[in-house]
Amino acid sequence: MATAEVVVANGSGGADTKAAFKEIYRKLKEEMLEDPAFEFTDESLQWIDRMVDYNVLGGKCNRGLSVIDSYKILKGVDVLSKEETFLACTLGWCIEWLQAYFLVLDDIMDNSQTRRGQPCWFRVPQVGLIAVNDGIILRNHISRILQRHFKGKPYYVDLIDLFNEVEFKTASGQLLDLITTHEGEKDLTKYNLTVHRRIVQYKTAYYSFYLPVACALLLAGENLDNFGDVKNILVEMGTYFQVQDDYLDCFGDPEFIGKIGTDIEDYKCSWLVVQALERADENQKSILFENYGKSDPACVAKVKDLYKELKLEEVFHEYERESYNKLIADIEAQPSTAVQTVLKSFLHKIYKRDK
Amino acid sequence: MATAEVVVANGSGGADTKAAFKEIYRKLKEEMLEDPAFEFTDESLQWIDRMVDYNVLGGKCNRGLSVIDSYKILKGVDVLSKEETFLACTLGWCIEWLQAYFLVLDDIMDNSQTRRGQPCWFRVPQVGLIAVNDGIILRNHISRILQRHFKGKPYYVDLIDLFNEVEFKTASGQLLDLITTHEGEKDLTKYNLTVHRRIVQYKTAYYSFYLPVACALLLAGENLDNFGDVKNILVEMGTYFQVQDDYLDCFGDPEFIGKIGTDIEDYKCSWLVVQALERADENQKSILFENYGKSDPACVAKVKDLYKELKLEEVFHEYERESYNKLIADIEAQPSTAVQTVLKSFLHKIYKRDK
Repeated sequence: MATAEVVVANGSGGADTKAAFKEIYRKLKEEMLEDPAFEFTDESLQWIDRMVDYNVLGGKCNRGLSVIDSYKILKGVDVLSKEETFLACTLGWCIEWLQAYFLVLDDIMDNSQTRRGQPCWFRVPQVGLIAVNDGIILRNHISRILQRHFKGKPYYVDLIDLFNEVEFKTASGQLLDLITTHEGEKDLTKYNLTVHRRIVQYKTAYYSFYLPVACALLLAGENLDNFGDVKNILVEMGTYFQVQDDYLDCFGDPEFIGKIGTDIEDYKCSWLVVQALERADENQKSILFENYGKSDPACVAKVKDLYKELKLEEVFHEYERESYNKLIADIEAQPSTAVQTVLKSFLHKIYKRDK
Repeated sequence: MATAEVVVANGSGGADTKAAFKEIYRKLKEEMLEDPAFEFTDESLQWIDRMVDYNVLGGKCNRGLSVIDSYKILKGVDVLSKEETFLACTLGWCIEWLQAYFLVLDDIMDNSQTRRGQPCWFRVPQVGLIAVNDGIILRNHISRILQRHFKGKPYYVDLIDLFNEVEFKTASGQLLDLITTHEGEKDLTKYNLTVHRRIVQYKTAYYSFYLPVACALLLAGENLDNFGDVKNILVEMGTYFQVQDDYLDCFGDPEFIGKIGTDIEDYKCSWLVVQALERADENQKSILFENYGKSDPACVAKVKDLYKELKLEEVFHEYERESYNKLIADIEAQPSTAVQTVLKSFLHKIYKRDK
């Protein structure tokens, strides 16, 4: 599946938080352009300035903003000190930079056309494959930002290790997706629930759901080793989120979600095709094998008809209910009520979303 | 200029060192394939195994081996303990992994054909742009290796910061090279000594010359802040090395250096064209503007004739003598004789090389 630029946490961050967050972006970018580790030329300065704006901005920043929200809940306060606001926003921006890095490179690998309503960065004239190096630079900015603002903090090493581990998991998930979806001839027998789950978990859930909370926990002075359950719950939530995404790609209202789904045409390892394969008889399977991954609208329609015949909408709603109940139970088994509140706030932002 | 896969330090590492080094590669790769941070499938395991062998091996490993040589000199011993050998070799391999990561991505950006006598990784059937993600995975392996074997050491943070800073400098140098060489219409007026120096220094010198010695210094318990001069000397040496590379591309013996130079055809910001531009009269400049960057052998011949007319061979030999004398003087001003020995061993491996 393509890396989704989607709502992670609807409505996170009040207007004040958003303004503070945006303000800190300007400062961080300014620092990147004055980094003494490189002697910029005018041309390279302009390039980086434009490249960072083009790729880091333009999303909803829900991942980044959720660091601040989560940190406030963990601290039990409504208002943070100036210093705390700065550090929380900075970690939020590091996640946005990470997302930008993944999206720039994913769009090249997927040969995508548009992203956040504008041409993908590598499609901008004069950019082309320089975008590969720009992706690398975006990743390097995170290390520069962390070093500048967190070196000397007791959790500096944990922060670096966290970003490194999450990046490794994401890239490994992306590899799995790439070799499962693209390699060799199209072969639907490769797709099953285990494969789908593994891709989603690694490619999306760790960086979108676990990383923001882990950043907030480190900022609050916690040791991540004590939060293995929290990690599992967030990864589970991220998986549920991606299943919703797969569902909405086919059954959502294009007007409302703002894009026309193409998972069927693109031969994506979607939760829907995996569920269909589980439930199909030999005859129905052959319909899938013949029509999945073709851009002809008649083929797409046949796949959609089969999804309806197999009652995948009901299967999804049942999955949604079960996931929710399981997640609530796991959350309520958490010893800290602050942690419970953080997790529930994530869950309620995504439960039964329709875009 | 393309990232050179060239001899950094001829003859570094005796046969024993090389055998130990190779042995440790096997162990490190094994650990990468058993990394508990990702649930590998058989397919992804085979992919990584092959990808790492294809890209990390096949070079001369001079950068990696020089960590071990430098560390031995700094410690003043001929033989290291098993533990020390392991740590030095591991850091050496981290540099080789870094090099592999740069080469995989550079070859994509330069649309290159071959590397180390085989097709570039992205040209291997079934790979294509998955190579972008493979490059990322190679980079992530370094963080995984450092975390596994150095976490808890007093210099762990310095090691991570070092690799991050060197990577950032390299990517920034690569950006400079890409936007100077490729962007927009060909414009030789952009090329001058300052531009050339800046590209070479950032894109090649830091990771090829400074990084191995910095690794050895950290391993020996030194604080890199006390070795600013050493850094400058090594970066200077790296610059000299790349100038040699540019010279040999045109004036070296293709039989002997093992490749046919194409810097003129490829419109590279080579030291030679920069020197020619400095020395050319208006008439000679127009010859350069008309013929540089064209694949027609007649154009290439005109540029080469002009280089000879401008006596660039002599200019180079004069530069070589001066660089050598300056470097020797700077090295002998170093307070530590062990450090002097390390630096001289690097210099003597590259001085007056003809391949």
